[in-house]
Amino acid sequence: MSADLARLVTALAQRARAASLVLATASTAKKNAALEKLASLIDASHFELLAENQRDLLSPAAAALSVAVRDRLNLDPDRLRHLAASVRAVINLPDPVGEVLEETTRPNGLRLRKVRVPIGVIGIIYESRPNVTVDCAVLCLKSGNAAILRGGKESFHTNTALAALITQALESAGLPAGAIQLVPTTDRAALATLLKLDQFIHCIIPRGGESLIRHVAENSTIPVIKHYRGVCCLYIDTAADPKMAEAIVVNAKVQRPSVCNAAEQLLVHRGIAASLLPVLGRALVEKGVQLRCDRDSAAILTQAGLAVTAAIPADFTAEFLDLVLAVRVVDSVGAAVEAINRDGSGHSDAIVTADEAAARQFLAGVDSATVYWNASTRFTDGFEFGLGAEIGISTDRLHARGPMGLRELCTYKFVIEGTGQIRG
Amino acid sequence: MSADLARLVTALAQRARAASLVLATASTAKKNAALEKLASLIDASHFELLAENQRDLLSPAAAALSVAVRDRLNLDPDRLRHLAASVRAVINLPDPVGEVLEETTRPNGLRLRKVRVPIGVIGIIYESRPNVTVDCAVLCLKSGNAAILRGGKESFHTNTALAALITQALESAGLPAGAIQLVPTTDRAALATLLKLDQFIHCIIPRGGESLIRHVAENSTIPVIKHYRGVCCLYIDTAADPKMAEAIVVNAKVQRPSVCNAAEQLLVHRGIAASLLPVLGRALVEKGVQLRCDRDSAAILTQAGLAVTAAIPADFTAEFLDLVLAVRVVDSVGAAVEAINRDGSGHSDAIVTADEAAARQFLAGVDSATVYWNASTRFTDGFEFGLGAEIGISTDRLHARGPMGLRELCTYKFVIEGTGQIRG
Repeated sequence: MSADLARLVTALAQRARAASLVLATASTAKKNAALEKLASLIDASHFELLAENQRDLLSPAAAALSVAVRDRLNLDPDRLRHLAASVRAVINLPDPVGEVLEETTRPNGLRLRKVRVPIGVIGIIYESRPNVTVDCAVLCLKSGNAAILRGGKESFHTNTALAALITQALESAGLPAGAIQLVPTTDRAALATLLKLDQFIHCIIPRGGESLIRHVAENSTIPVIKHYRGVCCLYIDTAADPKMAEAIVVNAKVQRPSVCNAAEQLLVHRGIAASLLPVLGRALVEKGVQLRCDRDSAAILTQAGLAVTAAIPADFTAEFLDLVLAVRVVDSVGAAVEAINRDGSGHSDAIVTADEAAARQFLAGVDSATVYWNASTRFTDGFEFGLGAEIGISTDRLHARGPMGLRELCTYKFVIEGTGQIRG
Repeated sequence: MSADLARLVTALAQRARAASLVLATASTAKKNAALEKLASLIDASHFELLAENQRDLLSPAAAALSVAVRDRLNLDPDRLRHLAASVRAVINLPDPVGEVLEETTRPNGLRLRKVRVPIGVIGIIYESRPNVTVDCAVLCLKSGNAAILRGGKESFHTNTALAALITQALESAGLPAGAIQLVPTTDRAALATLLKLDQFIHCIIPRGGESLIRHVAENSTIPVIKHYRGVCCLYIDTAADPKMAEAIVVNAKVQRPSVCNAAEQLLVHRGIAASLLPVLGRALVEKGVQLRCDRDSAAILTQAGLAVTAAIPADFTAEFLDLVLAVRVVDSVGAAVEAINRDGSGHSDAIVTADEAAARQFLAGVDSATVYWNASTRFTDGFEFGLGAEIGISTDRLHARGPMGLRELCTYKFVIEGTGQIRG
């Protein structure tokens, strides 16, 4: 039984590898034709897709889900229209494959070009959101990569129905069906096999909660690009404009607290804390934010008549994803940098200041994927960065850091043209 | 005992992480001062270094080494002068840190820059070559990375002496001694601990044989950049210039057979095999090359009076690193591409042809880090590519592919400057 499963997964990965070699040299027109067909098929298949989605929603696995997760699993005609539109949006993005990154002629006459090419075969491991099936398939396809999709059991019927449309779209464009495949089982043993197939699969991208990512990273012999937590920090310098500070703090914490680029921690310079913290605290409390404060910030806020909670040490490394904010007072921009490098997660951090020297120190010293001067951390996003789309936000350092778009789904090769050069 | 070892390695990694944050913003002048000092110290320490090297050469561990490996371990005044010169060469290379890779202003006025920054802490796991200690230390330092060096037991005393000079050089330039550290034990348990310290170490580069690399890749929770085998292939097309083909084949196989960019396999188009193979075969046999042939090439070469060996299937995936070449006849450029993608190692492969269409098909279709048209595979090298130096040649696809220089030891961060922008 388990040997059969291993054989099935291995054969699927081999098919993906073979398809990846075809896809790597497929024309932009062919790839776009497949995307166009997929969008039309989604438009034409509302009835079937909603029926399969209902099967998932009524399954015992779905009954155990939280309201929020159930909502993400749930499709409706509006969401399907949105899904088709997201496929069409990728058609309009430039094809990254074949872009020349560097070009040089060596003294011996060799003409050397560094050319963008697809990574090869990418495995996407995700949870219950069926839109991930389509988003990832579409981004991998446009960037010339074969994809192996392994979704959660809660959305298995929806994913299977979507994968059937993807296969149809590939075939209608004359592309190999093996280019995008859904693993036809959610058995954990199949995942374990998949994560060891480094001879066929070149990269794993897990999308989901921290425990999923950690499980994948610990069990994979294939390189994993991780998308971990965002413990985003805001540092309000002594030279901050108070109105700007208030607007950024409220936006970064409140506008959408459940996402990874929302702020989780506020550091305020001692020189401005007594005057500014009460203003910031009042604005946050009015929006329903719970403040978890160190001793110094608690004293100032309590003095100002605000109800705060005493922070425990874990609050300063926590990703709340909720209307909760850790607050502390620091003595200098250097102390803020040190605290953020120690306790943050290297995702997105911001300084608010009118002092350029302080800003430069912060931007250079904070070792995070994205650092901001006088802007909200909420902008860390592939669309906001102008990538057109994103497959995620990498918290890794190798290959891709921060928002990952089509270009980050590529590697490069050196193409060298000579006239008979040999090495002396 | 083992707990002590784990504590020692963990403390070392923590020191490296702290030092990496200092090094990331260290000026080019400071880093170059440390390199200059190191070169002088090597010049001034021949006596001590050669004495420690003798201890290694006379140790029981060294007695078991092959002549070739013993030779690589052995230092002499000439090699030490060369080592100091290689340090000075890195001083003259441009500092990659701070380079702006992309710059754009978003419609909302946010100014976005993608800036090259060090990866952080890099672990180098290597075997018995003491020059690797200095080469890797120097490249990591110049690129602003902290390095943890874990060399083989055969060169332990030499490495320890070199590491002491590196520490002295760092301190004399006002850089933290933790920036470059040698693991002060070659105990395997220390390596096992090291490979799990993903909270402090950001990248592992193993340098050595395939079994070392595989061991590291399988046991590391830290991303590994692998430098595997070079099963480099030469494809001689029907439209090849015979003289050029001969020069390239002989150069790629014979000039330095023990290195990863030497050719291991020759594929010849059926349309030119009868006329050209005997010429190529004769030239190779004259240089002492053993030819391991498929049936078709064996028939042609035997007919021409050359002694050949019948190939077994494993010969077509082998990295001989010796005067041995696998030879086969193929029916088309497409068949050559297919064979190379199946049996090669994705390192460096070349086509010799005067037919541009065939060349384009080969260059696009062969899924290797470096593909050549009318040139020897022997050029795959950081110096030949103009990188100035190399820490290795990656056979991975993520982050760095092919020769890795200073820039490939870096990642990037997004630095965003605003005027109070918040997300709507």
